Amino acid sequence: MLDSARGQCSTGRVRIQDEFWNRYTSLVRETVIPYQWEALNDLVPDAQPSFAIRNFRIAAGLEAGEYGGMVFQDSDVAKWLEAVGYSLRNHPDPQLEQTADEVIELIARAQHKNGYLNTYYTVKEPGQEWTNLHEAHELYCAGHMMEAAVAYYEATGKRRLLDVMCKCADHIDSVFGREPGKLRGYDGHQEIELALVKLYESTGEERYLKLAQYFIDERGAEPNFLVEECKRREGYSHWGKKNLPIPSVEQMAYNQAHKPVREQETAVGHAVRAVYMYTAMADLARLTGDRELMDACRRLWNNMTRKQMYITGGIGSTHHGEAFSFDYDLPNDTVYAETCASIGLIFFARRMLELEPKSEYADVMERALYNNVIGSMSQDGRHYFYVNPLEVWPKASERNPGRQHVKAARQKWFGCSCCPPNVARLLSSLNSYIYTFSTTANTIYTHLFIGSEAEFQLDAGTVKLKQQSCLPWEGNVSIELSEVPAAPFALALRIPSWSFGRAVMSLNGAPVDYRVEDGYAIIGRQWMQGDRVTWVLALEPQLTAAHPEIRANAGKAAIERGPLVYCLEETDNMSPIASLFIRSASKLKSVYDHDLLGGAVVIEADGSADERASWQTDTPYRPLAQQRASEPVKLRAVPYYLWGNRTPGEMSVWIRTVVE
Amino acid sequence: MLDSARGQCSTGRVRIQDEFWNRYTSLVRETVIPYQWEALNDLVPDAQPSFAIRNFRIAAGLEAGEYGGMVFQDSDVAKWLEAVGYSLRNHPDPQLEQTADEVIELIARAQHKNGYLNTYYTVKEPGQEWTNLHEAHELYCAGHMMEAAVAYYEATGKRRLLDVMCKCADHIDSVFGREPGKLRGYDGHQEIELALVKLYESTGEERYLKLAQYFIDERGAEPNFLVEECKRREGYSHWGKKNLPIPSVEQMAYNQAHKPVREQETAVGHAVRAVYMYTAMADLARLTGDRELMDACRRLWNNMTRKQMYITGGIGSTHHGEAFSFDYDLPNDTVYAETCASIGLIFFARRMLELEPKSEYADVMERALYNNVIGSMSQDGRHYFYVNPLEVWPKASERNPGRQHVKAARQKWFGCSCCPPNVARLLSSLNSYIYTFSTTANTIYTHLFIGSEAEFQLDAGTVKLKQQSCLPWEGNVSIELSEVPAAPFALALRIPSWSFGRAVMSLNGAPVDYRVEDGYAIIGRQWMQGDRVTWVLALEPQLTAAHPEIRANAGKAAIERGPLVYCLEETDNMSPIASLFIRSASKLKSVYDHDLLGGAVVIEADGSADERASWQTDTPYRPLAQQRASEPVKLRAVPYYLWGNRTPGEMSVWIRTVVE
Repeated sequence: MLDSARGQCSTGRVRIQDEFWNRYTSLVRETVIPYQWEALNDLVPDAQPSFAIRNFRIAAGLEAGEYGGMVFQDSDVAKWLEAVGYSLRNHPDPQLEQTADEVIELIARAQHKNGYLNTYYTVKEPGQEWTNLHEAHELYCAGHMMEAAVAYYEATGKRRLLDVMCKCADHIDSVFGREPGKLRGYDGHQEIELALVKLYESTGEERYLKLAQYFIDERGAEPNFLVEECKRREGYSHWGKKNLPIPSVEQMAYNQAHKPVREQETAVGHAVRAVYMYTAMADLARLTGDRELMDACRRLWNNMTRKQMYITGGIGSTHHGEAFSFDYDLPNDTVYAETCASIGLIFFARRMLELEPKSEYADVMERALYNNVIGSMSQDGRHYFYVNPLEVWPKASERNPGRQHVKAARQKWFGCSCCPPNVARLLSSLNSYIYTFSTTANTIYTHLFIGSEAEFQLDAGTVKLKQQSCLPWEGNVSIELSEVPAAPFALALRIPSWSFGRAVMSLNGAPVDYRVEDGYAIIGRQWMQGDRVTWVLALEPQLTAAHPEIRANAGKAAIERGPLVYCLEETDNMSPIASLFIRSASKLKSVYDHDLLGGAVVIEADGSADERASWQTDTPYRPLAQQRASEPVKLRAVPYYLWGNRTPGEMSVWIRTVVE
Repeated sequence: MLDSARGQCSTGRVRIQDEFWNRYTSLVRETVIPYQWEALNDLVPDAQPSFAIRNFRIAAGLEAGEYGGMVFQDSDVAKWLEAVGYSLRNHPDPQLEQTADEVIELIARAQHKNGYLNTYYTVKEPGQEWTNLHEAHELYCAGHMMEAAVAYYEATGKRRLLDVMCKCADHIDSVFGREPGKLRGYDGHQEIELALVKLYESTGEERYLKLAQYFIDERGAEPNFLVEECKRREGYSHWGKKNLPIPSVEQMAYNQAHKPVREQETAVGHAVRAVYMYTAMADLARLTGDRELMDACRRLWNNMTRKQMYITGGIGSTHHGEAFSFDYDLPNDTVYAETCASIGLIFFARRMLELEPKSEYADVMERALYNNVIGSMSQDGRHYFYVNPLEVWPKASERNPGRQHVKAARQKWFGCSCCPPNVARLLSSLNSYIYTFSTTANTIYTHLFIGSEAEFQLDAGTVKLKQQSCLPWEGNVSIELSEVPAAPFALALRIPSWSFGRAVMSLNGAPVDYRVEDGYAIIGRQWMQGDRVTWVLALEPQLTAAHPEIRANAGKAAIERGPLVYCLEETDNMSPIASLFIRSASKLKSVYDHDLLGGAVVIEADGSADERASWQTDTPYRPLAQQRASEPVKLRAVPYYLWGNRTPGEMSVWIRTVVE
């Protein structure tokens, strides 16, 4: 455990300077944040209106009108503010800060005197606060605003929103708990738990940590709060707008409240709820040293990432309840793989790295980041996927109702627009996912190979370093120490799973030995200023197979190169993509294409296409013996994250493969 | 056209005597009809109650109580009675006839004085008759009862139900039509149209034919009746139990009422509604010589059977609306392929054969019959599939909501139990699907190779024949003429698509020439009593490929042998079935297995299984290069219609195939 009891494990002060990622951080700063501000103000033409800012204005008494949007619409403002906080920390922007300050004043005005804050209940159902924790997301919205408050405070030093949210947290603390007279409940959508930990870490107020602990520990206890609450409402459902049958305790698996979290064996239910909860569990395990909670985190991590995760780092295989289904059920076409769920997976992974630095966590974090997450946003930063499929047939998305949730093109905005601002806050805080460090063990872990300048305070003293990385296109990484303490310390560089151990370390140009621990190459010594460690990772394209229990991928392989998963798009290949196949012995060739959406390495290979010319349109089935020899074709695969940015068409990650 | 204008084209008097089919006809007679009678009376333990008979008792004033079951529950009684009619025709059974007579009296008592008959509106919504044609199935239920009345009358000569239903038809004729004061509408679920044709053919009453024509011609006309009716109800929905948005004309594609039937290009909407309508269209085209209608029938047939039909003869690829989706969208796992839809496809095929004897219609009829339809019923006759999948993973059926409609085991009965009685009425009237004949052309067409004794009245005179068939296990068929007229006539034997023209005809043991017309081998001559034509059809197992546009089957093949489609079951092979593959050059061996569910030819072949032993449970993805050589396995495929009668497990029709 990394200094966990005292919460000293942190990510340092890090500033990204990276050819690949600068594009994203600039995009978020210059396009996404302004665009989403317009969206929150209902100013994007032809997009679904958000109503989110207007709701605050109505709640603050500045405007008359009806509440609009989802019951959890407040959280979109919160996530945007959180992203603004991260952005301002790295790139001061007085105008943006002024806009944010104004929004914060608006939020403060919408807060009740007792600290309660929620525009839905303020505008639409005053007096009904805390009567529908199961569905109404009050604590969820509060949690997001707490995260925003912490981010904004840490970026600007301004306490206004932090004070508002501490007051809100104090109010929540006065309402919820095991003490007589308090409501012994918890939210239907986990989020407050991880937010309270952040609030605790930012303010040092132990009550917030204890409240987070209470929410986690109470969840799934008997009698089941969510079920009992539903009975008190006589089954009235916010979504159904009528009384529905009282759900069973088992049905609370959707909310991960079917049993105490410590007893949960597999990842179940709504995927975003699950990973937000696991994130808080890992936080609490680190801060309290709770072994049982840590075991639960490991168990749920293992189940989720080893049996329920797509190769793109997507999780949640069914759109029914945006949920996990069961082990190895990972259909590519009816997939969900919500953007927010992969972002939550990254949160969880980072917390696990803080608990125990094992490269497995970073491998998954990287997988989700480079594929599912950045793939969810268009290259123009103005269009988003909510669902991230591994196989798309546009016509099926239009005309087969079971696949209508899978969009073949990114959308401008969504009625339920949780994902776009989530991408913005993740990418604007990406600097905090690159490293962790242990002050007492005097070790700096590099998890992601993203060019950056960083500063760490170890017990040994201050370390400043500069990472340079050619990823994802080339495998060259270097770390140069610009300031070193007088005492020794260790650098721990992740050995990515995709390098298969073929990684070479040099120090100032000469080969150097390192020891391997939990997937990290560790080199500890007395460093000199200007020391330069280079880390050359094998980065070769390869065909990847899926576990045989994943039936959807039987007889298929995916192309991967380093952290990137590749896919075939119709525009580069042909339709139907399903007619294409590759032989296992085919050589995969990496080619840098300057013209492809700002430049990217594409993979070319000799493949085959089933012969089609001899088929008649009037013959749906015929003897296989009539099939003529397949035709040689050039396959061209592009990084998954770039799909859907050109001519719309079919796409597939998994390619039929003949093993030879 | 086969004497169509005068409706003389018929199927003769046919009695099945066939080793394969006797089992089914006996099962229907001895088990299915009695079992379904119990089901209709709510006497099957642990099965969903039907309420159907009880509804009639309540409507007849013999019992107090609430209406139970679906709004169209009456039709289950009708379909049962229709099956009883067919069964009594072939196998008199005084006790069964007495039960049926009692039910008929009950039905007569439930009829209103004006002829109206529907227990739902009588019991539950009196006064609201004909206000919700879109959803409430009144004409649909009436149609089924008309079919029952005709079947029962033709079997027993008893007019009681026929009179009841003529009175009902007269009432409907007084309510619906284009004349002032009449309701210019039609039913949301087609059925009345084909039923009125049957009533016309049985009674000679032209008004019934004209009413059927009216319903077909009016459908989809502007302004759209179903939409306008919905407006009059202010959008009130029977199913939603509240007012819903008024649907668009385009949404009426579900009911095939989005445009006039003559303008419909592709099979769309609810599959059962579609094929019931096409059946009536073909009837009307035959009886009226309407070329436009005939063209529409051909167009819709072609689209449906060439681009939207599963290899098992299943139609309807999505459970959302139990509907067609679009061309070549035929997923095997999320499939619908409702039993009733394939039965309706058989109805349509038979009507097309009456219009124009082309073997293509009979090929499809046979495909649907031998696979989807008989596969829907368990070998004990007491369990049924509503959905007939081509790929089953039982765990996914349980735990992935998008596949929960696909059951891995047949059910005892259903809340919406349209399928079981539909199977009963089809199988008990199977004798009428074997032949058609043209009196004026003096030709007898044999469409299905099912052992039977038959009698036909041609212009040339009376023909009696006896067909013997070893299908589906062997390809030997013979037709012996036991009575021949003095004038010549022709026998036309279908050349099944699966024989690929490799069919040998002999007359009295000596080879004989025949001419081929529209897929039939025709031999016309002056016959002698005792003449025996043998027809030896190539019946070899083969691998069948699907059209490349059917993406779900890319890189796969199905095993077929004669009319039977085969499948791999877990109990004979292994799990996951997706790990298995076959090489295109593998020899398929037919083996008769006496012990398999009463005896069946199974197909054995050398196949391969992906190597699995080297996989770790903690590795979802790994380099394909780590995959060891596949392992040789013996594949064992059983006829699709037998699947799910042994140990439950995975099943797949389509098998991964390496083309060599």
